[in-house]
Amino acid sequence: MFESAEIGHRLTKAQYKEQVPALREALLEAQATLFVEKKGPVVVLISGEDGAGKGETIDVLYEWMDPRYLSTLAFEEPSDEERERPSMWRYWRALPPKGRLGIFAGSWYSDPIRLRISGELSQMGLDARAEQINRFEAMLVNEGAVVLKFWIHLTKEAQRARFEALQADPLTAWRVTPWSWDRLKTYDKLQKVSSHLLRMTNTAWAPWVIVEGVDDRYRALKVGQVIQAALASKLAAATQAGKKKPATEAAAMARVETDGRTVLSEMDLSRTLPDKEYKAELGLLQGRLSELARDPRFKSRALVLAFEGADAAGKGGAIRRITAAMDARQFQVIPVAAPTEEERAQPHLWRFWRHLPRHNHVAIFDRTWYGRVLVERVEGFCSPADWQRAYSEINDFEHELVASGVIVVKFWLQVSQEEQLRRFKEREQIAFKRFKITAEDWRNRDKWDAYQQAICDMVERTSTGEVPWTLVESNDKNYARVKILRTVCERLEAALDATGPAPGKAAKKRKR
Amino acid sequence: MFESAEIGHRLTKAQYKEQVPALREALLEAQATLFVEKKGPVVVLISGEDGAGKGETIDVLYEWMDPRYLSTLAFEEPSDEERERPSMWRYWRALPPKGRLGIFAGSWYSDPIRLRISGELSQMGLDARAEQINRFEAMLVNEGAVVLKFWIHLTKEAQRARFEALQADPLTAWRVTPWSWDRLKTYDKLQKVSSHLLRMTNTAWAPWVIVEGVDDRYRALKVGQVIQAALASKLAAATQAGKKKPATEAAAMARVETDGRTVLSEMDLSRTLPDKEYKAELGLLQGRLSELARDPRFKSRALVLAFEGADAAGKGGAIRRITAAMDARQFQVIPVAAPTEEERAQPHLWRFWRHLPRHNHVAIFDRTWYGRVLVERVEGFCSPADWQRAYSEINDFEHELVASGVIVVKFWLQVSQEEQLRRFKEREQIAFKRFKITAEDWRNRDKWDAYQQAICDMVERTSTGEVPWTLVESNDKNYARVKILRTVCERLEAALDATGPAPGKAAKKRKR
Repeated sequence: MFESAEIGHRLTKAQYKEQVPALREALLEAQATLFVEKKGPVVVLISGEDGAGKGETIDVLYEWMDPRYLSTLAFEEPSDEERERPSMWRYWRALPPKGRLGIFAGSWYSDPIRLRISGELSQMGLDARAEQINRFEAMLVNEGAVVLKFWIHLTKEAQRARFEALQADPLTAWRVTPWSWDRLKTYDKLQKVSSHLLRMTNTAWAPWVIVEGVDDRYRALKVGQVIQAALASKLAAATQAGKKKPATEAAAMARVETDGRTVLSEMDLSRTLPDKEYKAELGLLQGRLSELARDPRFKSRALVLAFEGADAAGKGGAIRRITAAMDARQFQVIPVAAPTEEERAQPHLWRFWRHLPRHNHVAIFDRTWYGRVLVERVEGFCSPADWQRAYSEINDFEHELVASGVIVVKFWLQVSQEEQLRRFKEREQIAFKRFKITAEDWRNRDKWDAYQQAICDMVERTSTGEVPWTLVESNDKNYARVKILRTVCERLEAALDATGPAPGKAAKKRKR
Repeated sequence: MFESAEIGHRLTKAQYKEQVPALREALLEAQATLFVEKKGPVVVLISGEDGAGKGETIDVLYEWMDPRYLSTLAFEEPSDEERERPSMWRYWRALPPKGRLGIFAGSWYSDPIRLRISGELSQMGLDARAEQINRFEAMLVNEGAVVLKFWIHLTKEAQRARFEALQADPLTAWRVTPWSWDRLKTYDKLQKVSSHLLRMTNTAWAPWVIVEGVDDRYRALKVGQVIQAALASKLAAATQAGKKKPATEAAAMARVETDGRTVLSEMDLSRTLPDKEYKAELGLLQGRLSELARDPRFKSRALVLAFEGADAAGKGGAIRRITAAMDARQFQVIPVAAPTEEERAQPHLWRFWRHLPRHNHVAIFDRTWYGRVLVERVEGFCSPADWQRAYSEINDFEHELVASGVIVVKFWLQVSQEEQLRRFKEREQIAFKRFKITAEDWRNRDKWDAYQQAICDMVERTSTGEVPWTLVESNDKNYARVKILRTVCERLEAALDATGPAPGKAAKKRKR
């Protein structure tokens, strides 16, 4: 893998000086265009062996490029806010917005490599991480990002020589620590792990560029040239925008109806719960939820509740019955409307990542990341190719949440067209609910069938074993609210019980 | 102070039921209008004695209002990211944007009260904090926020009774901890400290509302009614927008010129530094800065560099000479352009607070919070009243930074009108600098005199002992860059030396 970076690439000062001015000019022009046209972002990973010149390469990029559109993202020890979220959270929050270039000094590759070398990650575990990384990077590229991954390589001998040279110069001696010399000992292991991981993640959409690190001039020029070429190609491609070929086959396949029965048509919307039973059950379930939210085992977990449903399906009312059982300091309700300008400059899932709860906290999403495959699909706010890939992106997102200990529960609230109409009319009459109904609500009704199709596809493709959809018969609010509360309690309880027995539970029983 | 909240306010169930529906309707209408018109935000502080029903009050607000435009901000132990910033940072990052209502369970009052009770804060210290709070809240209100501060009060006897009642009910017993009973012991101290602090911060723009906490119905209704009244008044006032009276006297006073001499006219722009000396000095200063950035004493400090100057004054080039001396992982360059949509929904200083560096990090602002009193003033982007109050808001901001250990250094780069013209023309000719010049740059030249006046006012009003302006003669780039680098080194060194002797410095000297 690294052979091409061991052949002794070198540039004379004259060769270097001849090439730099034109490169610098091209980089600056490209950066400015990228910024003005809000294209990209450009994600640059600078990886490689210690002492290979990663820091020096970044320094040269700062010298050549406009630092106003450039940022360097460094990842030291995770902060406590980061440790209480999925491991990818810190990278999501550091992603540069469209129009800008972010240099990652350290990235999502650092942890898998380190853990595999120390033996904390198995070979199979490493492969799983590689697979996850590929999907993450594919998502970035599909969202418009340019992902450039550099591995700056040194042979073992070159690494030793570099450390010695650094140490000899009083201005750079601080860069060499006892830790550096340890790196020489693990050199062979690092080569084995990194070459495997690089091979696994050397994809068409985000290929690795191996750069020989020995010669400062060669290394800098090579990295600069690759960035410039990628920017030029991105900007050229961007001018042919909108030419994305929709995956018409997939759409055609989805339209096949054999007997007209769907998960939605099979729902029994006539289910009801009389007021008296409702009140009794509600009280019990709220009490149970209140206890679960204060369970000591929840202190190292978090809960994400996702609510989707047609307009007037009763999401708000259901959410209120949940929040009533919890301390306001423990939850946040996140109403999802049109994305803000800063959110539009990021991958579509970014605005949900930013609201992920810390340990012992609950995030309740009133509309969710499924907007991509519902409203955005039906209204044509994104291209068919965009919403078609969103299913697996969403599955990956929820998998990452679950893998990090977040409990995710998602609900679809289904009402019949007649019941929805009845509620719209009712809302118009009750003054203090009037504000809830808009012209858009009426318009959405016209697309009822298209929405039903989108919902069925969504359930089929994103109801996973880890995070199944709970379809809620919502013509009767009592029934719906109790079903939702019960599901939340059961899922939370099951997840906590999987962690270990409830502390004090045995003791309590004994007392009685 | 609390007498009015000890008279035994009570509401019957019938009285309560009669009033709630209309209140709820009014609250929902007001919330919706606030959101649509992007007015506010509304900042609600719920404070008071433990057990007074703060949590219950918040719960009722959630029951009455639309949780989509509501959030509760709780402040537990500060996270490490928060501990490494000025103490107000966590409140700034939690501020609700325009159109929304944020309930602060815990606020900027919590720390001063706690510290005064424990004796860690002197009476004078408390008064200083009160003064600071008043200025902070005035800024919020001037920026369009409604600040509602509730103190829910219980007598000592009522507090004891409340704890006993909570403990007796298995559903609420968890709320009572050994800590709660301690509160009874410090009750008198709390009364003394809080009544003093409340009195000091009972301002016209953000008055306290004392609410008797004993009766659940009275407490909730009172808080709800006050919020509703404030919202109604805000929305009514907002319709008379733009009627802010500019402080014309101040503007007239500023225009008085007695001898035409200003800090700018007195600068000797003919200063130069020959290339040879420049190179030598540059190398030395960069080496010194590089060492200072790695000084162990910097690990608990942070550095903020603020650059202002006319177009083409050389801010970018100067910044590059500084970043070249540091590790890219340690600094961020923050180019300040027009605020984003999320930033426009916040007080004008918010977008700078969000970029404050952690310990051991450097934030370099290319244009700054002084835009308010420069471009926004001259171009009329904000009202005279807005930029006139900005001077003291900015002084407060910088004071908070300094008080928390941040080293702040700010530069004004002055070029003559002739030199600027020369650079504009030069830029148009050198291809890879071309992107830097825009139509706006040419336009700004027309307002040269207005800008000079604004700069003089800015220097006069914001050059404080803690954070003085450094005016840089920038017609010669060599001279300017060396002056800036030297100033950064000197200020950094002085600040670190004030912390204690450089570790290892003595040792080093001994070695020699």
